[in-house]
Amino acid sequence: MTTPPAPQACDLLLTDIGQLVTLAGPPGPRRGPLDDLPAIADAAVAITGERIAAVGPRAALEAAWRPARRASAGGRLVLPGFVDPHTHLPWVGSREDEFARKLRGETYAQIAATGGGIRATTRAVRAASVEQLAAAARPRLDRMLAHGTTTAEAKSGYGLELAAERRQLEAVALLDRAHPIDLVATNLAAHEVPDERRHDRAGWLRALIDEVLPALRPHAEFCDVFCEAHVFSTDESRALLEAARALGYGLKLHADELEPTGGAELAAELGAVSADHLACTGPAGVEALARSGTVAVLLPGTSFYLRLREHAPARRLIAAGVPVALATDLNPGSSLTESMPMILTLACLNLGMTPAEALVGATVNAAHAVGRGHDRGRLEPGLLADLVEWDAPSWRYLPSHFGVSLVARVWKRGRPVWARSGAEVPA
Amino acid sequence: MTTPPAPQACDLLLTDIGQLVTLAGPPGPRRGPLDDLPAIADAAVAITGERIAAVGPRAALEAAWRPARRASAGGRLVLPGFVDPHTHLPWVGSREDEFARKLRGETYAQIAATGGGIRATTRAVRAASVEQLAAAARPRLDRMLAHGTTTAEAKSGYGLELAAERRQLEAVALLDRAHPIDLVATNLAAHEVPDERRHDRAGWLRALIDEVLPALRPHAEFCDVFCEAHVFSTDESRALLEAARALGYGLKLHADELEPTGGAELAAELGAVSADHLACTGPAGVEALARSGTVAVLLPGTSFYLRLREHAPARRLIAAGVPVALATDLNPGSSLTESMPMILTLACLNLGMTPAEALVGATVNAAHAVGRGHDRGRLEPGLLADLVEWDAPSWRYLPSHFGVSLVARVWKRGRPVWARSGAEVPA
Repeated sequence: MTTPPAPQACDLLLTDIGQLVTLAGPPGPRRGPLDDLPAIADAAVAITGERIAAVGPRAALEAAWRPARRASAGGRLVLPGFVDPHTHLPWVGSREDEFARKLRGETYAQIAATGGGIRATTRAVRAASVEQLAAAARPRLDRMLAHGTTTAEAKSGYGLELAAERRQLEAVALLDRAHPIDLVATNLAAHEVPDERRHDRAGWLRALIDEVLPALRPHAEFCDVFCEAHVFSTDESRALLEAARALGYGLKLHADELEPTGGAELAAELGAVSADHLACTGPAGVEALARSGTVAVLLPGTSFYLRLREHAPARRLIAAGVPVALATDLNPGSSLTESMPMILTLACLNLGMTPAEALVGATVNAAHAVGRGHDRGRLEPGLLADLVEWDAPSWRYLPSHFGVSLVARVWKRGRPVWARSGAEVPA
Repeated sequence: MTTPPAPQACDLLLTDIGQLVTLAGPPGPRRGPLDDLPAIADAAVAITGERIAAVGPRAALEAAWRPARRASAGGRLVLPGFVDPHTHLPWVGSREDEFARKLRGETYAQIAATGGGIRATTRAVRAASVEQLAAAARPRLDRMLAHGTTTAEAKSGYGLELAAERRQLEAVALLDRAHPIDLVATNLAAHEVPDERRHDRAGWLRALIDEVLPALRPHAEFCDVFCEAHVFSTDESRALLEAARALGYGLKLHADELEPTGGAELAAELGAVSADHLACTGPAGVEALARSGTVAVLLPGTSFYLRLREHAPARRLIAAGVPVALATDLNPGSSLTESMPMILTLACLNLGMTPAEALVGATVNAAHAVGRGHDRGRLEPGLLADLVEWDAPSWRYLPSHFGVSLVARVWKRGRPVWARSGAEVPA
């Protein structure tokens, strides 16, 4: 008989996990159809500092670990914290009047012609300080946390001039320090052509490449371009992204949202980390993404909110082997939601994804879509202890319950940072 | 010069209301298209006991009332508490496996044939005690409250035998006493034909009329019937509802959800307080409802969740003068949500209702749909002080923000009963 090894010390042992889904696996994003996920009943997680020390059946962890503190998950489901890989977080103002106008049948072009749409938000953002931008965004982050998101991407793109774009990114940096949610900053100065440059598109493109992208490089990890008919053409987008790549940005692309423009092919060609939207991507785009390994970030909240007939071809993308992630697209005009659980439901109902594919899309693959696949999106030793306790009987249940948050408690980097009433106190 | 009258005493003055929408007006339900709602900026509400003493501009109420206590709404929007007039609240168990099966294309009939659907919930409910039914429903009520609902209807209908139906209604009575939300009980024993009666439909109908309806009369204010092809025919529904009316029940009807069966006409003919679902109601049904004043309770969560092509003809109903209300249809199989705000968004996006019509449908008209139009659904002197503070810049904004709760604090019968983190303490 061998003596069992002496228990190791850890900071915290979270026990009484009714069902634990770690999504552990190989380091890359997941590809292909998926109907099931491995789950551990009566599980535990050992945490030291900000990281996971061990995950597994409770009995095994009780024997192997000597925790300084303990907490009970009360029999709840535990999943990795969600990663929301596409948001337009830092804005001020609201556009509820446009919501009513769109319901009456007005088009985006009609609304834009009267100064609405992104133009309204650009006016408001240009008039706002860094502190005002951060103050407006903070309750959005609180709602994201309350719906299980522990990491989010945040794009600029409403300033449409260097100083205002910089203030947006400074607000993102401020919030990243001040709020439990980790933020990944993306420079989307190439979101639109501002009004004062309408008659000088070439000048705006030059300014982006020569001034805006270099000046904002210290403020943003990724660069994104709105490649769409009437905004930036595929050639313009290529020029912008090649300049960004030369500056050391990681690349993202708003591609094929409203019309097929070859955006997916461009993202694949340039090795972008993600191609986002893709509602109108055709077979060539799907094949290109499958070859390149670029993550397809699908935004079912947007096609729902805009009442589009075309949803992203999730089943074709998955069948072709493209890694698929999901995001809120949180923004004031075309997808006003902070809730990743709502996005999971929409992905199942409107995109035909399975609950298993949707969960992978909100965790493992979402982390890869923002260059964080190495340290989050899964619950494995050495990764960040970002985990969420859910009032749900199983992982399959999550997308079936819509419009509300079932989050009981959120742990970020090993600490409890949010709890619903009645679930506050670690036992 | 006249001396101003001495201020009157009240228990509480809620001030700093950025925008107050009282929905005050004539006592009946609202009919006809509506684009705007009167709103009071910088408003206050005076409360005495469980009732509203006065509403109006802050300055006027400050001069006219001498409150024992004060509270600040922090500049927020204040609306009447929502009334959810159609829920199947008291159930146990969950059916997430069916959600995935439906996504794969299985029909309700296929799922029912393997013991799923309502049959699964009936098995679980028959095995549950009153206390188990109440314990399972309580977190649902907590979520309803956190989304702004202060009164809800609750149907039996999963027991499908006298004793189990009674336990469902006893659980509703228990929760009505124990939880801040007021519950209105409805006997829906005529929800389905239970398996053991499949070969004796006539016997089940006789049992409902001779035993179940009379025995449950002390437990339920309303009686409802599932009038639908393959469930109860229009003639069977008429027989059931006439018996219920003779027993003193108010009448409700599940009508024309999946096929047009004349359910709306029947509800109108019998003077039902509401006809619910109505996705397939034709012109004759619409005209009948308009003449009778029966409230149309529309359930856009259900057509969303079941991915139906047909949504209820809200615009035709409103144009014809039918009073329209909105409800969650909260249930484990066809609309798993507690959120009235989510229903408002779906009513706008999928039913073409305006934000004003949706708000009326969740307050004034919803109260009339459960026989409570006289004492709630509006904020007027003498009515219940059921009101909700929202983190929203205006009433128009509410349905434009989806999938999350913007509720900051809920007042029920004059007392604060729920608050989000940071909004707890009356100032």
